[in-house]
Amino acid sequence: MEYLEQLGQRAAAAKYELPRLTTEQKNHALLAAAAALTENAERILAANGRDYEKAQESGMTQGLLDRLKLTVERIGAMAEGLRQIAALSDPVGEVMERFDRPNGLHISKVRVPLGVVGIIYEARPNVTADAFGLCFKTGNAVILKGGKDAFYSNVAVAEVLRESLAGEGITADAVQLIEQNDREVTTAFMRLKEYVDVLIPRGGAGLIRVVVEHSTIPVIETGTGNCHIYVDEDADPTKAVPIIINAKTQRIGVCNACESLLVHEKIAEVFLPALGEALRAKNVEMRGDETVRRILPDAVAATEEDYGTEYLDYIISMKTVRSTQEAIDHINRYNTGHSDAILTENSDHAEQFLQGVDSACVYVNASTRFTDGFEFGFGAEIGISTQKLHARGPMGLKELTTYKYLIRGDGQIRTL
Amino acid sequence: MEYLEQLGQRAAAAKYELPRLTTEQKNHALLAAAAALTENAERILAANGRDYEKAQESGMTQGLLDRLKLTVERIGAMAEGLRQIAALSDPVGEVMERFDRPNGLHISKVRVPLGVVGIIYEARPNVTADAFGLCFKTGNAVILKGGKDAFYSNVAVAEVLRESLAGEGITADAVQLIEQNDREVTTAFMRLKEYVDVLIPRGGAGLIRVVVEHSTIPVIETGTGNCHIYVDEDADPTKAVPIIINAKTQRIGVCNACESLLVHEKIAEVFLPALGEALRAKNVEMRGDETVRRILPDAVAATEEDYGTEYLDYIISMKTVRSTQEAIDHINRYNTGHSDAILTENSDHAEQFLQGVDSACVYVNASTRFTDGFEFGFGAEIGISTQKLHARGPMGLKELTTYKYLIRGDGQIRTL
Repeated sequence: MEYLEQLGQRAAAAKYELPRLTTEQKNHALLAAAAALTENAERILAANGRDYEKAQESGMTQGLLDRLKLTVERIGAMAEGLRQIAALSDPVGEVMERFDRPNGLHISKVRVPLGVVGIIYEARPNVTADAFGLCFKTGNAVILKGGKDAFYSNVAVAEVLRESLAGEGITADAVQLIEQNDREVTTAFMRLKEYVDVLIPRGGAGLIRVVVEHSTIPVIETGTGNCHIYVDEDADPTKAVPIIINAKTQRIGVCNACESLLVHEKIAEVFLPALGEALRAKNVEMRGDETVRRILPDAVAATEEDYGTEYLDYIISMKTVRSTQEAIDHINRYNTGHSDAILTENSDHAEQFLQGVDSACVYVNASTRFTDGFEFGFGAEIGISTQKLHARGPMGLKELTTYKYLIRGDGQIRTL
Repeated sequence: MEYLEQLGQRAAAAKYELPRLTTEQKNHALLAAAAALTENAERILAANGRDYEKAQESGMTQGLLDRLKLTVERIGAMAEGLRQIAALSDPVGEVMERFDRPNGLHISKVRVPLGVVGIIYEARPNVTADAFGLCFKTGNAVILKGGKDAFYSNVAVAEVLRESLAGEGITADAVQLIEQNDREVTTAFMRLKEYVDVLIPRGGAGLIRVVVEHSTIPVIETGTGNCHIYVDEDADPTKAVPIIINAKTQRIGVCNACESLLVHEKIAEVFLPALGEALRAKNVEMRGDETVRRILPDAVAATEEDYGTEYLDYIISMKTVRSTQEAIDHINRYNTGHSDAILTENSDHAEQFLQGVDSACVYVNASTRFTDGFEFGFGAEIGISTQKLHARGPMGLKELTTYKYLIRGDGQIRTL
């Protein structure tokens, strides 16, 4: 693929140039890019209009159309995102460890950029500016492959960013957008191992699966969340109902929303009626096991498949369990390693759950919706990792870096 | 693959059991396993004899036969390795960070095992005990796929380890060996994503390539080293010659050996004759560019391919450059991200090289042979990572762990 080869070479050239920029130069360029976005709002809106029209014609659902649509306010929010990134501290260059060896070698472990980051994403055009900002601040060159529905929007945003960088005397190749939409190009991109150091897919479970299947580049899996809440026998119902309603319904389409509920059988009889009422008020469909359906007759029967499903919808699966351990075992079998919570006033059960559940984020008495870079105080987020290598949970700026060892000697040779 | 499915399920069960062991229990089990290896030396040697005989018949080279062969001393070294791992501190459970949010959430980032580690390796049977020890100490279950040439040896070692664990009342499934040797099984193992959290290939470049190509499990690439030494115009020849001879010839078959030499043209005329003499004394074949061959007439012509080759042999490629930057650019083009060194008394050139070279370990005035978990003081090594995700350079116990966030609340819900 000649086209990708050229993109790769340009990114590789940029990745050696970007780490030489000072934090001040990078921040200045981010602020300039933010200004350029608002100055070029009309141009971006015109391009977005083309995408939107095409999407309407092809019968895109209202929800997706809404994600695709840009407005002056949304462009303003993209710009504000870049300004916020400029305000964050720069993790690159941090000396993480320093140690001396008996033979006199001085070793330091220093935080450096990953190099070239590839991002494959779906419809939202704001990811174009957002991913650029995070990668640029951390000294990485980024190659973006956006969804074809947002093609013209992405091209316009990327052009504005590139022009702005060039105006700052910085290589425009810090951000490149793949402008070919065939599936073959996307697949070849996932194998551009010679030039791309890490690939981050941002989108639904289907996209993640395809990337994991085809990529030879190291991947960070993000954002599939079959999140559970377990209502322990010692739960406080006055906390539990609001937490569950929040986690399930505050925003249904997000990866940290609750999809499945486990309830200790000892509390089911008194707790479920109150919860059922609150869920009904939010029009949430309940799918439960036999005990749940006996207590809540309007719940439909849950299947094995339900327990493994990330609905992203007004649906919740519900199951009764006989112990904290049974809840832990169920969760470890069906979860996606994202976020799970126990609601209990019993500290032994809480500790057992915290230790036993194998997820990025394990909660006691709080909504799973807090799994988020901003809510964690990172100031930014490139995604939520559901794998165990490199980073787990919300990924901020630090997670877009790696390290290298610098070893200073005075003629040391190895004798054994 | 029914067989692998069963192995996976057993490993998954073990991965929830192992983190509950105390450090004392783990250390006790490691010491018991060490004792079991020496007590069962005869049994292991008998199995190894079968492998050795088969390998001799099939015409294995002397070098590989030597790697395969076990002796009482080598079994003693395997046992000693386990005892050393027992003596190291346990990284699991460390609270890496702790922070409170304005809404009252208490967040802690705690070091936990990766879960199930898969290791695919080649002929050396000592890896069986070594990989077990490192994974066990860090609370991981391990599934091993050894080379077929060491099949009976690996089976014997794994059996002894499993029996010893069972004797301690610990699940034997902490270590499992794949006992089917067809390629199909190995390929299916690389896709056992449901059960295996990370896959670490230990072997030559060919093995690594196959694993990266086929695995859907996150991989840590290890151990390919096209390591460079750059002799700057301001190098001290009395340091430079011993360092190069050490890095090239102290052990030729290892990944941190020097494979390629760059020499500043200003020092070439005075430096190369002395170096040539030392290399000749060690029977190292020199492959150089035109300038090198003018100064060292016995050097043969280096091709483009030479610069990208990890010889693992008494051969070195040599090239003259006009600046530190040219050396950096050459290295970043041809290296494998392992270890590279500059020899110079000029601190500006040293800093430029340290910042500019994109490798796990960048040296000033020392042999690349120091890239090693023991030499770095980690007390153990599972491999040397040449990728940028998760870990870079020598990987010790800490690099066999991940983290999770434990979030303790009191009814918090998200409002925005």
